[in-house]
Amino acid sequence: MELFTFINIGGTIAFAASGTLAAIRKDLDIFGLLVIAFVTSIGGGTIRDVLIGHLPVRWLLDSSIILLILGTAAVTVIFRSKIKHLDKTLTFFDSLGLGFFALRGIQEGIAIHLNIPSCIILGTITACFGGVIRDILLNEIPALFRTGELYATVCIIGGVLYFALLKLNIASDFRDVIIILFIFGIRMLAIRKNISLPKINKM
Amino acid sequence: MELFTFINIGGTIAFAASGTLAAIRKDLDIFGLLVIAFVTSIGGGTIRDVLIGHLPVRWLLDSSIILLILGTAAVTVIFRSKIKHLDKTLTFFDSLGLGFFALRGIQEGIAIHLNIPSCIILGTITACFGGVIRDILLNEIPALFRTGELYATVCIIGGVLYFALLKLNIASDFRDVIIILFIFGIRMLAIRKNISLPKINKM
Amino acid sequence: MELFTFINIGGTIAFAASGTLAAIRKDLDIFGLLVIAFVTSIGGGTIRDVLIGHLPVRWLLDSSIILLILGTAAVTVIFRSKIKHLDKTLTFFDSLGLGFFALRGIQEGIAIHLNIPSCIILGTITACFGGVIRDILLNEIPALFRTGELYATVCIIGGVLYFALLKLNIASDFRDVIIILFIFGIRMLAIRKNISLPKINKM
Repeated sequence: MELFTFINIGGTIAFAASGTLAAIRKDLDIFGLLVIAFVTSIGGGTIRDVLIGHLPVRWLLDSSIILLILGTAAVTVIFRSKIKHLDKTLTFFDSLGLGFFALRGIQEGIAIHLNIPSCIILGTITACFGGVIRDILLNEIPALFRTGELYATVCIIGGVLYFALLKLNIASDFRDVIIILFIFGIRMLAIRKNISLPKINKM
Repeated sequence: MELFTFINIGGTIAFAASGTLAAIRKDLDIFGLLVIAFVTSIGGGTIRDVLIGHLPVRWLLDSSIILLILGTAAVTVIFRSKIKHLDKTLTFFDSLGLGFFALRGIQEGIAIHLNIPSCIILGTITACFGGVIRDILLNEIPALFRTGELYATVCIIGGVLYFALLKLNIASDFRDVIIILFIFGIRMLAIRKNISLPKINKM
Repeated sequence: MELFTFINIGGTIAFAASGTLAAIRKDLDIFGLLVIAFVTSIGGGTIRDVLIGHLPVRWLLDSSIILLILGTAAVTVIFRSKIKHLDKTLTFFDSLGLGFFALRGIQEGIAIHLNIPSCIILGTITACFGGVIRDILLNEIPALFRTGELYATVCIIGGVLYFALLKLNIASDFRDVIIILFIFGIRMLAIRKNISLPKINKM
């Protein structure tokens, strides 16, 4: 489907760009920068593929993804001084990518007949764990665990919604679009309203 | 076997509870807390399953483990103020879990005909590496490598003992119980007597 | 081939020794030290094997590698006070190992018919990511990403050269030796001349 290809590419670009920016901030050299761009983009899908045993992992079989990430990193470096103005564009693609990758992970789980909680976990891992590996490599507590702005949470809620819609027998294309837009929309809202999960006080 | 099911559940609960407590101490939000509880519980077995190629990893196929961990995290959060009094209970289950998971890893290695050192390594990974991933995610040098109180060491010694008993032709149930109790006992002793491995001075 | 066996052993020893030294500097106990020695040696190959689905990972099937690493760690600890004089020997083996492991990764990729960029990435992962895991476990930003002295870069360039030579129809043994010597030579030169990749200034 062309819509999904477009969103997939947009999501990959957004994740690669955000990784590149994080690497520049941390004074990495060019190689380190490329690794971080890479890992942010394909890290979540890689963990998913390893956990379900879909090996070799997919990006090894598709050089176009590799070239897309390299190109994104190069463009991001060149235009890094103007990237602040691009913040909104990045957030837009990042949130769309979040929806797409979460959907993708859920569907991979269904394809091998996993139970519902496992499918939702796979969706969340696919969408969020590239950023987790990025933060580990940059020696930080994963942002995801601290200032989530509902990053992972919308993936989980989106996953629950997916299985609710599955029971309603909606056409699959329509259902998929609803899930992506739901995750995208709630995430954008959470950023704008600065909504985040409560912490547990220590007592 | 019912005894093993009981210990397996006890170990999973103890590991999930200790992960939850570590997450509360680090100011994570609710999602981060659940991830840490999860990873502490099933991280070691996940690495083992990936290394030997037993994919999809087991917890993806068993939603009861997922629900057990979620429930444990919830209960731990609710009773966190009273958990200091529970310290001994936790240590008790944690040490039992250590024995059970180490035994489990060794047996997985034997099942695919690995050599003895590899089986012992798999046992140690299964028992200890959930905690290692937890510490990496929390941006700390794994406690395991510093103040081990013989955490990993008892798993290794227990593994050597397992293969010694294997030569003695003891009934397998009896042998398994000996190994679990051995690891459990030495670990409890090491905690009580504050025994730990020497460090190498730098000279 | 005996030459390759020799270089493989030399590389494994050099990587295990460098991991051991890093662990001593960080005040780890004996167990932590062994884990770091292990991970530095076999970490890169393990990630490669997992990504391509060659499971169980190879070192689980070969106890001689395990014993070699344990032996190296022991010898390194015993002679740690004299190891500064050994710095050049270590660098020598480390650079040879770099060439060998990069070549090995490339060939594993070719064996399962991956595309060229993926083969080069596998070579680089095999040669470099043991050190990355070591640094993550020691809670540092991977040195590889900061002061690379062309560590990863020579692997990438070596990989490109490999595929160029492949088109020239050179005898395979000769080609392999060229690649190893090329990576070894450029790496030694980069260390001596203190050449490293530029960083991106933040603007």
